[in-house]
Amino acid sequence: MANLQDVAKAAGVSKTTVSRFLNGSLDLPAKTAEQINGAIRALNYKPNPHARRLSLGRTDTIGLIVPDIATPFFATLVAAVEEEADARGKALALHATLNRRDREFSYIDLVRQGHADGLIFITNHQGDPALAERINGAGPCVVVDEDVVGAQVPKLFCDNYEGGRLAGRHLAQAGHRHVLFIGGVDEMISGQRRFGGFAAGMAEVGGPDCMIERATGAYTFDAGRAAAREFVARPRDNRPTAIFASSDELVIGLYEVLQATGVSVPEDLSVVGFDDVGPLHLFAPAVTAVRQPVRDLGRRALCLLLDPPALSEGTKLPQEELLPVTLVERASVGPPARTAL
Amino acid sequence: MANLQDVAKAAGVSKTTVSRFLNGSLDLPAKTAEQINGAIRALNYKPNPHARRLSLGRTDTIGLIVPDIATPFFATLVAAVEEEADARGKALALHATLNRRDREFSYIDLVRQGHADGLIFITNHQGDPALAERINGAGPCVVVDEDVVGAQVPKLFCDNYEGGRLAGRHLAQAGHRHVLFIGGVDEMISGQRRFGGFAAGMAEVGGPDCMIERATGAYTFDAGRAAAREFVARPRDNRPTAIFASSDELVIGLYEVLQATGVSVPEDLSVVGFDDVGPLHLFAPAVTAVRQPVRDLGRRALCLLLDPPALSEGTKLPQEELLPVTLVERASVGPPARTAL
Repeated sequence: MANLQDVAKAAGVSKTTVSRFLNGSLDLPAKTAEQINGAIRALNYKPNPHARRLSLGRTDTIGLIVPDIATPFFATLVAAVEEEADARGKALALHATLNRRDREFSYIDLVRQGHADGLIFITNHQGDPALAERINGAGPCVVVDEDVVGAQVPKLFCDNYEGGRLAGRHLAQAGHRHVLFIGGVDEMISGQRRFGGFAAGMAEVGGPDCMIERATGAYTFDAGRAAAREFVARPRDNRPTAIFASSDELVIGLYEVLQATGVSVPEDLSVVGFDDVGPLHLFAPAVTAVRQPVRDLGRRALCLLLDPPALSEGTKLPQEELLPVTLVERASVGPPARTAL
Repeated sequence: MANLQDVAKAAGVSKTTVSRFLNGSLDLPAKTAEQINGAIRALNYKPNPHARRLSLGRTDTIGLIVPDIATPFFATLVAAVEEEADARGKALALHATLNRRDREFSYIDLVRQGHADGLIFITNHQGDPALAERINGAGPCVVVDEDVVGAQVPKLFCDNYEGGRLAGRHLAQAGHRHVLFIGGVDEMISGQRRFGGFAAGMAEVGGPDCMIERATGAYTFDAGRAAAREFVARPRDNRPTAIFASSDELVIGLYEVLQATGVSVPEDLSVVGFDDVGPLHLFAPAVTAVRQPVRDLGRRALCLLLDPPALSEGTKLPQEELLPVTLVERASVGPPARTAL
């Protein structure tokens, strides 16, 4: 089989030139490129060890199952896994389940049948015993972002509780005592933790008498719009003075309706977001938000899959691992609005 | 093999309840859910025809290769393909190439070896003969979004020329005669067409003496930032009065630098974007942009792959198909700024 040296010799260039041309880090004049491509064709050269392994029929492939590829959060997470896979010479097969049980089952089966080296699994709804069982039978697997109770595999989440707590403390420090939490269907553990931390953070700073309302809903534009419409329909003297919208999509839906109805942020209402993957820094006004370490989540997920931590003595289940979050302060939080108008 | 009726009977619920529970459209009390899951486990029921086909080892799988999954444009396009695949009972295997030749080759090989039903291929750099050859040997395939010259397969793009033309006419109608086009590495056909249409649109309205500058660069945040920094470094009396930034990422990078350096849009500078997939409507100020029909691109790509159009008589090559674009007017375009300051 022809090697890189053969191609370089036939094309009349250096090995380094061929290598850099093939990995895309070097742009060559069309003539030189054609010489290299001609040599590759003539010698039937397989461009790199990765491609060669694939062409020999071994997998070296990781399966990655996500609920929804269209949201920037999942898209960015997937990109980070892809980059880490590339660094480790692995291929990645992605599957989007549209957050439906039947497609989750199908894709877990597909990954198993493909004899992949392992599976990174992300759901965005409440797990159930049948799903946990499927995961437990899927071979090497890591559950990321949202828990599947009963899955006995390593788990990796951002520190949702601490993220909620940061948001709660920040709003209470700005003087807010009556606030609204939007997001998380009741059963989602990420949402429970964000809410639990939020309530704790408010109480730590604002004392036990804070009034914390909750509007549950999926992490979607529509749920953000719906919560905003409910907010503006309320009498002005009985509105919360701040909203913690616990995903980028919720913030976007919320902002749309607030702008359309003339509610000024932060003069009339303070807003804190969660995720901070989209371009919230360019919004009017720029959104203060808890930032998830989404690229770290992706990279770390692949590391956990390929190099699972040893279980400590006497431990039966892998530990869950939490990555730290940060609060990014911008321009959407101010003191509580006066209700008199 | 157990069917839906068996599960329903064993769980003591209706077939409809089981079906809706499995496709995620019905939330049930925990006890009922556990009855259904118990019945599924006991009977080893495979949830739906799609899963059953997969478990029999047939593929019914489409391969989708994209350069970069992290940008909202590609993420949304992929989601649209996934939804169409779901409607047609197909599974989808996505692969992100990081826009590198070697990974494009590897993934095309991987899809072929997986005996997928077909391939939807998207690159974001200049195609070359070796890539075209690989595509031509890959079985049923559709090339989408960016051309690969020499690939003899159906091709689907948005109408890049018309999109550029709409932007050019709009800016010229607002009075601009000295403008800057940002984006598209020289070799990319999408970029050539956007620029060609832009120049034509400016000339149609503004006459032959318009001054059109061009800053080429990849469709990235960094290229947008770099072009903006060059803009602000110029003497005020020799600046273009409007910029056409030909991707969402370019607009975001551009806006960041303009805000940081105190350039007001549209008072000091008008801006038109391209793609309009991200939340540009919430930016300060909201961005006027040419909107790509990104979901239509995704859906149509799968249709072209599964139901390729018949070649008309005497035609050897499949036609390329263009989807229409629209201009969404918001708040980032005004009359040219006075240069005197």
